[in-house]
Amino acid sequence: MIKVVIIGSGNVAFHLIGKMQESAAIHLLQVLVRDEKSLAGILPENKIITQYHLLEEADIYIISVTDNAIPEVSNGLPFSNRLVVHTSGTTAIDAIASKNRRGVFYPLQTFSKNKAVNFTTIPFCLEAENEMDYVLMETVLKSISEKVYRINSFQRKSLHVAAVFVCNFVNHLYHIGSELCKENDVPFEILYPLIEETAKKIHDLSPLEAQTGPAKREDTKTVNSHLDFLKNDEYKNLYQILTQSIQNVKKL
Amino acid sequence: MIKVVIIGSGNVAFHLIGKMQESAAIHLLQVLVRDEKSLAGILPENKIITQYHLLEEADIYIISVTDNAIPEVSNGLPFSNRLVVHTSGTTAIDAIASKNRRGVFYPLQTFSKNKAVNFTTIPFCLEAENEMDYVLMETVLKSISEKVYRINSFQRKSLHVAAVFVCNFVNHLYHIGSELCKENDVPFEILYPLIEETAKKIHDLSPLEAQTGPAKREDTKTVNSHLDFLKNDEYKNLYQILTQSIQNVKKL
Repeated sequence: MIKVVIIGSGNVAFHLIGKMQESAAIHLLQVLVRDEKSLAGILPENKIITQYHLLEEADIYIISVTDNAIPEVSNGLPFSNRLVVHTSGTTAIDAIASKNRRGVFYPLQTFSKNKAVNFTTIPFCLEAENEMDYVLMETVLKSISEKVYRINSFQRKSLHVAAVFVCNFVNHLYHIGSELCKENDVPFEILYPLIEETAKKIHDLSPLEAQTGPAKREDTKTVNSHLDFLKNDEYKNLYQILTQSIQNVKKL
Repeated sequence: MIKVVIIGSGNVAFHLIGKMQESAAIHLLQVLVRDEKSLAGILPENKIITQYHLLEEADIYIISVTDNAIPEVSNGLPFSNRLVVHTSGTTAIDAIASKNRRGVFYPLQTFSKNKAVNFTTIPFCLEAENEMDYVLMETVLKSISEKVYRINSFQRKSLHVAAVFVCNFVNHLYHIGSELCKENDVPFEILYPLIEETAKKIHDLSPLEAQTGPAKREDTKTVNSHLDFLKNDEYKNLYQILTQSIQNVKKL
């Protein structure tokens, strides 16, 4: 079994801890956290540590903390020449202190603590400084996911930016949709099938081909009636900018 | 069987024609189109007409044309006191000429001609001027969908505006995500699980609770590194505006 230590207790660490405890290929040795209460009930007490000097020898140390804290945490590790990886989409591999062998595995998914996710369908983006470490990381990841991609630091950054557009910003548009429903006493659930179809449609058509609606049709009458309808200036502004952006694509 | 006539051959009409031909409760009598070639192979030739005076007597006439054309088309119908409905999300019921009994059924879904949709899960928003007609429309719709909601013209408009946000604008963000992947030689399919999870998550959490990412975390370093990464001014501008909009929600 491959011995793994996780450092951190954020959303990604939390889900990794759960999944790695189930995996037959992985022995989750310890989890290092600032506050041991953050993992109470999730992990046996003897596996939870709060001090660097208590870290045992493992095959992989997974740093899953705020992006900004990766250099400091990796510098604080009291050993060298071991495999240390981070899980950040937007941080380059060299944010990890160079005294250890370095790698990255970035799970491209949105994690909330109170929502289970199916790990087997999560794509993991892998990078390592040397091929032996890549193979070891791949073995660990393949025991929890079917989708493992070799992605370098620059590509990973582009993916992370793209993920902000297709996840964080998309979710914000869902929020606006739900607010509009609430204001007008309409159940938001009426929109669920539309939301799901929009997300699935792009498997068969490119988003460019899949585009519909008043902006795409250049249906100015509908666009104007929607702008009239929107009383919230922020929503009105977003409506205008996104409509214009859709129409700019058409003109290319 | 309820006798139905469809007027129009756009995306919605096209899918209704397919589904209504399969329904045991519905007899699709005729489809009136401008250009009979638009339905070649979809419908027997004797059911396709191009002239108003050839319209036969039916229980419901469904006008499924561009929003702007609804008044003109409904005025052109050579009869009165029959049930005439439109399928527009953004047009009030009274856009239909008042010589006939009026109704609306708006299928809240995104339709592309070359992409099949599962009608049974599409929510239909129904409105009628009188209760008898509402019941008739409900019977027709329940033969092709499990989800039928009573929604008045004002509520329907709010739903249509919300649908533009959660479908058209969301799809545009998918387009931007796919362009960023293409530019950096990364397969867009890596993002599919994230896109689907984002769409499904809001069944269990409100979009407000489901929000994640650098904007929500107020992680300025990541936001700035993403803005640096984006070379396209339009994408940069959208990134800034949507980040700000997410942060405005937090402050409420």
